Amino acid sequence: MNQKEIKQNIVDCVNRVKAENPMAGSITNTVTINFVANAQLAVGGSAAMVYLPDEAEGLALAGNALYINVGTLFPVYSETLPRAAKTLHDAGKAWVLDPVAIGLGSMRTQLLYDFKEYKPTIVRGNASEIISLAKLWGLEEQGETGAVRGVDSTDTVEAAKNAAVQIARYTGGAVAVSGETDLVTDGHMAVRSHGGSLFMPMITGTGCSLGGVTAVYATSADPFTAALTAANVYNLAGARAEKDVPGPGSFQVRFLDELYRATPEEIANNPFEVEEL
Amino acid sequence: MNQKEIKQNIVDCVNRVKAENPMAGSITNTVTINFVANAQLAVGGSAAMVYLPDEAEGLALAGNALYINVGTLFPVYSETLPRAAKTLHDAGKAWVLDPVAIGLGSMRTQLLYDFKEYKPTIVRGNASEIISLAKLWGLEEQGETGAVRGVDSTDTVEAAKNAAVQIARYTGGAVAVSGETDLVTDGHMAVRSHGGSLFMPMITGTGCSLGGVTAVYATSADPFTAALTAANVYNLAGARAEKDVPGPGSFQVRFLDELYRATPEEIANNPFEVEEL
Amino acid sequence: MNQKEIKQNIVDCVNRVKAENPMAGSITNTVTINFVANAQLAVGGSAAMVYLPDEAEGLALAGNALYINVGTLFPVYSETLPRAAKTLHDAGKAWVLDPVAIGLGSMRTQLLYDFKEYKPTIVRGNASEIISLAKLWGLEEQGETGAVRGVDSTDTVEAAKNAAVQIARYTGGAVAVSGETDLVTDGHMAVRSHGGSLFMPMITGTGCSLGGVTAVYATSADPFTAALTAANVYNLAGARAEKDVPGPGSFQVRFLDELYRATPEEIANNPFEVEEL
Repeated sequence: MNQKEIKQNIVDCVNRVKAENPMAGSITNTVTINFVANAQLAVGGSAAMVYLPDEAEGLALAGNALYINVGTLFPVYSETLPRAAKTLHDAGKAWVLDPVAIGLGSMRTQLLYDFKEYKPTIVRGNASEIISLAKLWGLEEQGETGAVRGVDSTDTVEAAKNAAVQIARYTGGAVAVSGETDLVTDGHMAVRSHGGSLFMPMITGTGCSLGGVTAVYATSADPFTAALTAANVYNLAGARAEKDVPGPGSFQVRFLDELYRATPEEIANNPFEVEEL
Repeated sequence: MNQKEIKQNIVDCVNRVKAENPMAGSITNTVTINFVANAQLAVGGSAAMVYLPDEAEGLALAGNALYINVGTLFPVYSETLPRAAKTLHDAGKAWVLDPVAIGLGSMRTQLLYDFKEYKPTIVRGNASEIISLAKLWGLEEQGETGAVRGVDSTDTVEAAKNAAVQIARYTGGAVAVSGETDLVTDGHMAVRSHGGSLFMPMITGTGCSLGGVTAVYATSADPFTAALTAANVYNLAGARAEKDVPGPGSFQVRFLDELYRATPEEIANNPFEVEEL
Repeated sequence: MNQKEIKQNIVDCVNRVKAENPMAGSITNTVTINFVANAQLAVGGSAAMVYLPDEAEGLALAGNALYINVGTLFPVYSETLPRAAKTLHDAGKAWVLDPVAIGLGSMRTQLLYDFKEYKPTIVRGNASEIISLAKLWGLEEQGETGAVRGVDSTDTVEAAKNAAVQIARYTGGAVAVSGETDLVTDGHMAVRSHGGSLFMPMITGTGCSLGGVTAVYATSADPFTAALTAANVYNLAGARAEKDVPGPGSFQVRFLDELYRATPEEIANNPFEVEEL
C-alpha cells in the first residue's frame, strides 16, 4: 500500500465512525476509565465498560471491537479477561490489548501470557511494554531490556521496532508503539506518525484513551488502518491542543475538543512516513 | 398542582440544598463516579461513595437519600445492593435508581428484578432503560421493544411515557426519562422539561450525574419535585454551557460551572410543561 | 529549624522532584483516582495505581514512597492494605495514609487500627479524621468529638492540633491537617500554611490528591518537609486558580495548571508560620 491508499483508508474509517457511532466496549483501569470513555465519544464512538465475566462476554459479542487494558486488575479479572479474550477470538471480533505495567504481579503476567493464544488484533503500548510482551510470548529472545517502571517506558520507540514487528507477524494484526514519534506496524510495513505534545505524558491516560479510540476505529477498519488512524488523530489533536495552554489541566480539556473537531481529511494528512519491511 | 406551585417547590428545594449542604451517598459506576461527585458538589450537596455491604448500609442510614447506579457491577454488589435497598426501604429513606445497561449479564438482571420489592423513590434512566425496567417488573406487557445498546437508548422519550407512568404508580414515587426533552412523572402528572445541549450525549456521565444530583435534591423535597428540579438544572446548565464552546472537553468544564451558578429562580423558570394524566 | 531553613528544604525537595520524576504508587479510591494521578504528574512525579496484594507489595518496593487512601474499600483490601503497610514499614519506605471516612464500616476501622503498628510516615486528613484516628489509636482520650460526616469534617483544624501532634510523636513522622488554614506538624513544630480557595471543598478530591502529591514529595524529602511542601503548593495553586474562574469546573482545570506552573521558590514562599511546641 502506498501513502495515498493509506490516507484514503483513514478517511473512510473516520467517516464510517462518525456516521455510525459504533460501540466499542472496554475492560479497563479505574484511573483513566473516564478519559477513555470521553475520548471514544469525542471521535464519534460509543463507550461501555464492565468488570464481570458474563458481562464482558456479552459486551464482546454486542460490538465489533473490544478494548482490554490491564492497568488496575481486580480479582475477578482472572475469570473475566480470559473469557472475554476467548470469546473475541472465537467470534472473530477485533480487540485491542494494552499491556500496561507488564511485569508487575503474578496475575498480570499470567493473563498477558495467556492472551498469546487469543491473538489480540491490535496491541498498543509504550516501548518497554511492547518489548516485554514480545519476550513474554517468546517472540524476541535477544535485544533490549524492556524494563517497565510503574506505567512508564524506559526504552525508545525505535528500540521496540523489532518486538512490534514480531508481535504483528505472530498475531496477523497490528501493533502500535506510543512515544515521541509513534510507530504502527502490521509486520510488513512500519509507519511513523508525527505530532503530539510534550503535555501528553503529563496527563494520565493518554495511552489508555488512545487504546480505547483504537478500538472504536477497529470496529470500522482493518487493524493497521485503525491503529494508524488513532495514532494520527492523537498526534494531530495533541499538537493543536498544546497551543497557548498554560498547563496540563487546560491541555486535557482542549485535547478532547480537538479530538472532536478533527476532520477525516485532517486526520489522514497528519504527517506520517511509510517504510516497507 | 399547577405550574406556579411546582416552581415554588423547586425554589424551596434548591434553597434548602444550598443552605444545608446535604449528603447524598452513592453506589455508582467507576466510569463517571468523579463527575457524579463533582456535579453533586456543584449544586450544593455533599458526596460519599462506597462498595462494601455494611458501608452501604451505614451510608444509607447516615443521609436522607442514596443513589444506586448499576453501571459497572463488582462481585460484592450481589450482597451490597440488596442490603442497601432493603435498608433504605425499611427506613423510609429516599433513593434513586439508575438501571444502566439493563439486560446485560445475569447479576444485573437479578438485582434490578429484586429492586421491585424495595420500591426506588425515583427511577432515572434513558427511554430504553425505563421501558426495559417496566417489562422486567411486569408493569408493561406490550408496546415498545426497549432495546438497550450498551449504555445507549434506542427509543424516544415519548415511547417510554407509559412505562414511566406505570413504574411511578407502582412505586408511589417519581420517574424521570432523559432525552432531548426530559419527562418527569409521579403517575398523576407528566412534566416535560426543555433545554440541554447536543454535547450532553457526547460526554460520559451526563445521565449518571443527573441521577446523583437527583439524590441530592431528594434529601430536601418530595420525589417529583426532586426529579424535576434536577432535570431543570441540567437542561438550564446544558443550554448555557454550550454557548461558544469548541468541543465536549470545554463543555463538561463549563457545565459544572453552570450547575454551580444556577439560582433557585432560574432553575424553577427553566421551560417545562405540565400534563395532567 | 527556622523559617529560612525550612524554605530551603522546600526548594530542594521541589527541585529534586522536578529533576528526577520520582514514582509514587497509590492504593486509592475510585472517586478521585484520576485527579490524584494528574496532580502527581503536574508537580513532576509519576503515578501508578493497583488493587491486588502482590502488586501493592511490588509497587511499595519499586518506589521511594506509597500513598494509601481508604476512601472506597474493595473486599481484597483486607489482604492488600496490611501487606502493603507491612512491606513499607519493614523496608523503611515512606508512606502517606489518608484515613478517609474513618468510622464507616467494620473493615475500614480494622484496617486503620492495624496501621498503628506500621507507623505511616505521614498522615493527612481533615480535622475530624485526624481526631478520630488519634482516638482509634488510643493517643488522645479526651477533647473534641471528631465526628466524620461521610467524607466531610465537622471540626476545625485548631481543634485537631493536639491529635495531630500526638500522632506525629507516636509515628516519628509528620501529620497534616487540611482546612481553611493547613496545619503540619512533626510533633516538635506546628506550621500553619495559608492560602487555598473557597472552591477547594467544592471539587471532589482536593484532599486525596494532596495526599498523592505529598507521597511524591516524600520520595525526595523528610516527612515534615514533604507534607509542608505539598500544603504550600496546594495553597498557592488554589489561590491562583481561583482568580476570575466562573465555577468549580474551571477551577479544577486551572488548579492543575497552577500545580504545574509553581516554581520551587514560589512554593517555599507561600505564607506559613512556625510554632515551636
